Amino acid sequence: MSRNVLITGSTSGIGLGIAEAFAKNGDNIVFNGLEENGAEIAKSIGEKYGVKTVFKNSNLMTPEGVQELVDFAYAEMGSVEVLVNNAGIQHVSPIEDFPIEKYQQIIALNMNSVFYATKAVFKKMKDQKFGRIINVSSVHGIRASEFKSAYVTAKHGVVGLTKVLALEGAPFNVTCNAICPGYVKTPLVEGQIKDQAKAHNMSEEEVVENVMLQKQAVKSFVPIEKLGEIAVFLAAENATTVSGSTFTLDGGWSAQ
Amino acid sequence: MSRNVLITGSTSGIGLGIAEAFAKNGDNIVFNGLEENGAEIAKSIGEKYGVKTVFKNSNLMTPEGVQELVDFAYAEMGSVEVLVNNAGIQHVSPIEDFPIEKYQQIIALNMNSVFYATKAVFKKMKDQKFGRIINVSSVHGIRASEFKSAYVTAKHGVVGLTKVLALEGAPFNVTCNAICPGYVKTPLVEGQIKDQAKAHNMSEEEVVENVMLQKQAVKSFVPIEKLGEIAVFLAAENATTVSGSTFTLDGGWSAQ
Amino acid sequence: MSRNVLITGSTSGIGLGIAEAFAKNGDNIVFNGLEENGAEIAKSIGEKYGVKTVFKNSNLMTPEGVQELVDFAYAEMGSVEVLVNNAGIQHVSPIEDFPIEKYQQIIALNMNSVFYATKAVFKKMKDQKFGRIINVSSVHGIRASEFKSAYVTAKHGVVGLTKVLALEGAPFNVTCNAICPGYVKTPLVEGQIKDQAKAHNMSEEEVVENVMLQKQAVKSFVPIEKLGEIAVFLAAENATTVSGSTFTLDGGWSAQ
Amino acid sequence: MSRNVLITGSTSGIGLGIAEAFAKNGDNIVFNGLEENGAEIAKSIGEKYGVKTVFKNSNLMTPEGVQELVDFAYAEMGSVEVLVNNAGIQHVSPIEDFPIEKYQQIIALNMNSVFYATKAVFKKMKDQKFGRIINVSSVHGIRASEFKSAYVTAKHGVVGLTKVLALEGAPFNVTCNAICPGYVKTPLVEGQIKDQAKAHNMSEEEVVENVMLQKQAVKSFVPIEKLGEIAVFLAAENATTVSGSTFTLDGGWSAQ
Repeated sequence: MSRNVLITGSTSGIGLGIAEAFAKNGDNIVFNGLEENGAEIAKSIGEKYGVKTVFKNSNLMTPEGVQELVDFAYAEMGSVEVLVNNAGIQHVSPIEDFPIEKYQQIIALNMNSVFYATKAVFKKMKDQKFGRIINVSSVHGIRASEFKSAYVTAKHGVVGLTKVLALEGAPFNVTCNAICPGYVKTPLVEGQIKDQAKAHNMSEEEVVENVMLQKQAVKSFVPIEKLGEIAVFLAAENATTVSGSTFTLDGGWSAQ
Repeated sequence: MSRNVLITGSTSGIGLGIAEAFAKNGDNIVFNGLEENGAEIAKSIGEKYGVKTVFKNSNLMTPEGVQELVDFAYAEMGSVEVLVNNAGIQHVSPIEDFPIEKYQQIIALNMNSVFYATKAVFKKMKDQKFGRIINVSSVHGIRASEFKSAYVTAKHGVVGLTKVLALEGAPFNVTCNAICPGYVKTPLVEGQIKDQAKAHNMSEEEVVENVMLQKQAVKSFVPIEKLGEIAVFLAAENATTVSGSTFTLDGGWSAQ
Repeated sequence: MSRNVLITGSTSGIGLGIAEAFAKNGDNIVFNGLEENGAEIAKSIGEKYGVKTVFKNSNLMTPEGVQELVDFAYAEMGSVEVLVNNAGIQHVSPIEDFPIEKYQQIIALNMNSVFYATKAVFKKMKDQKFGRIINVSSVHGIRASEFKSAYVTAKHGVVGLTKVLALEGAPFNVTCNAICPGYVKTPLVEGQIKDQAKAHNMSEEEVVENVMLQKQAVKSFVPIEKLGEIAVFLAAENATTVSGSTFTLDGGWSAQ
Repeated sequence: MSRNVLITGSTSGIGLGIAEAFAKNGDNIVFNGLEENGAEIAKSIGEKYGVKTVFKNSNLMTPEGVQELVDFAYAEMGSVEVLVNNAGIQHVSPIEDFPIEKYQQIIALNMNSVFYATKAVFKKMKDQKFGRIINVSSVHGIRASEFKSAYVTAKHGVVGLTKVLALEGAPFNVTCNAICPGYVKTPLVEGQIKDQAKAHNMSEEEVVENVMLQKQAVKSFVPIEKLGEIAVFLAAENATTVSGSTFTLDGGWSAQ
């Protein structure tokens, strides 16, 4: 049975990969993102997999922007069965020099938008006795790296929220889980490579080898398709008892 | 491409469910277990899915028994690509009354056999630059329940071993992960229901509702098929960077 | 040697208890809090233990308020050796009914103020080659309870931030740890008893027994003095290598 | 009030440091260890701090040896209020070459002896409504390093057992916690430096800098006195609600 899946930050990177996995599974997608060609991306995925797709470029930095996106989803699709909170940004700096505005933006988008989006769908998910909320956190939701105070704070916050939602949703077949990837080669990470190169005064190659993947025992990026697979796994009908957990795909990072 | 999968304790319960998931995926299975009709079980799965299946009832309580099983697997299949360490037993008692022999059996089967089986395949997995080791631990590998000192000790030990193996295997495309289910309706759990009823002086119905699933926010058993799905996910070709993690399917138990 | 200790939210509850522990240890205290008699509290502690104490009722809901407090501390004391981020509020509600304003206040005070206060002292702590940052998180920084989405999110966020600060401070003898208490009998918790009684439609006695301490195996409140002891332990000269950890005093809550 | 403290492996290293901390606190000590001059060590600590000390060199590799030690403690002291399970050994090797006998010894001493010793005192601790069990695990009780499969398995097992004991002891004022140090400069670690130098083909200096303390953000060894302090903290009268936790002193290792 086809479901409606709302995915924030889905016009590129991990979000787009997860969108494609759900579309392949026969689900309809509400796309969101800041790419200028977001509508085209949505259209092409819809045509490729024969599912309904729509797009809205709401800015998720504010509660109002988030509400606008959720309202759009219900107006276009009628219901939302799966919510994937994926939108995120990054900034790298020692805490003493970390711009307060950057901190606030990261908390707003990476963490607060998860709260607002979930708040906006939770009652209806409970009423329809089905809901799957998937939060794309990070290995930084369970471990830290220096110079990423805002990001690590936000991603840990999301892991905490995930657990609460699992408990509140449990009697209603509404589940919530977090996916915690290590390094995935996305536009965000490509930006991080540049930022870290600057912060550490290294070449970009050295950053990948010695900084970025230094904490992963497995020295390769996590494939986006694998994140799509786990998201579809978590969203399945038979996943009622899979809730409140972090699914960590991190090349052995958190094991050591 | 068809792989050879060795699964301990696979003639019933979770192990059998995982075996069926791999067989459905087109993989050959080495069955192991104490069921008297183990050979028939293996045969019927093989015929149902058109894969090669063999069976050996080695007793995994000793290093020699484990070695015998691994030797059998190589002799019959030529190689082992996936090892699923699943065999386990349980005993419930306050620690002061816990029979030492019971403790030793649980440590031997639930934990030591994982070490011995892995030790016996690891060099060849490294040489063939492919290996997937999946340890069926438990939510008791990350959390405790009273009166289960031996089981919780063993399952935590397995989680630790999982992390080491992920690190040692990382440069060789050999991964290791643990699956940590909450309560699954297996023969073992049906036995636990009886044991706990005795320990807590309750009816079996009360045990399920108030003891067994008390710590799960979601009040239903974890379906075996879901464990099979995650095992196949972990064993895939594209899972090289998925290593050293626990995959917890526990109805929100560990979230609270 | 006497150090200067800045403690947010220190005119009552856990913060006051920690302040008293440091004063007893011979350290000077910068008090902060919203109690109207904050200055008197500071004065009486100062007289009791013969240490210098000052008080400032800055509102920590904004970056400016936090900066004001830190500036005051440096102006009055000359230096800050220990920062205890303790101020916090709580609100209990199902997420669908959770007032956005309440969410924002909890994130602002319980989490963002930790970032701002630390940012304001970190450079000087690095320069003086000594700093001890102690974040009073909660067992809700590592586990969840239903109806506490904002609080659990904020407290998990603080645990994440703690880890980052440990890494950034490591080369400079600046440490950061989190204390994660279970239930302590503070004004905040007394308020929670009332709130939960309402949310669960129970008497306050039932809330304590069956809700509040339900998840603790040990059915008593964590004594404030124990939190003071661990804070002094973490702030000691010889605690350079104690960093990035959560110190959980929770009556066995997180063990199960 | 003076208590009787039984500490395994207490004639050198961490165990001796913990013994000294308790003696300084006014507690009597039952020493155990394989040092030939164990009786002299016990005597000198007793004289230094004016407490009663006794010594028994029981071999803790077997249940019988453990029982012998516990029987000796009760015979000499009349009661045991605090049990510190500290004895441990190490061996470093890739799993495929790990001698089965070495694995069995590490599991026996580092893990099984904790079970047996606790089993032997638990009933009496419950009856006397006071007991403090402190298990010296390791950062390897929560994280892994390659080539340490047996040690990491055992130390994780101990962390699991710790949680169970906290739950079983909770109604009786019997607590159990684990201490998880990073690298401490003990005879064991000095041996590890040599072993790792061999395994990695490095000089001992390089091992300390780049291997041993590589995972610690803080590049210094954890001082033994800090472990003694935390042990005394955990054993105190007012620590009834401190149970089931790991106290990690690891230089930021587990934070990243």
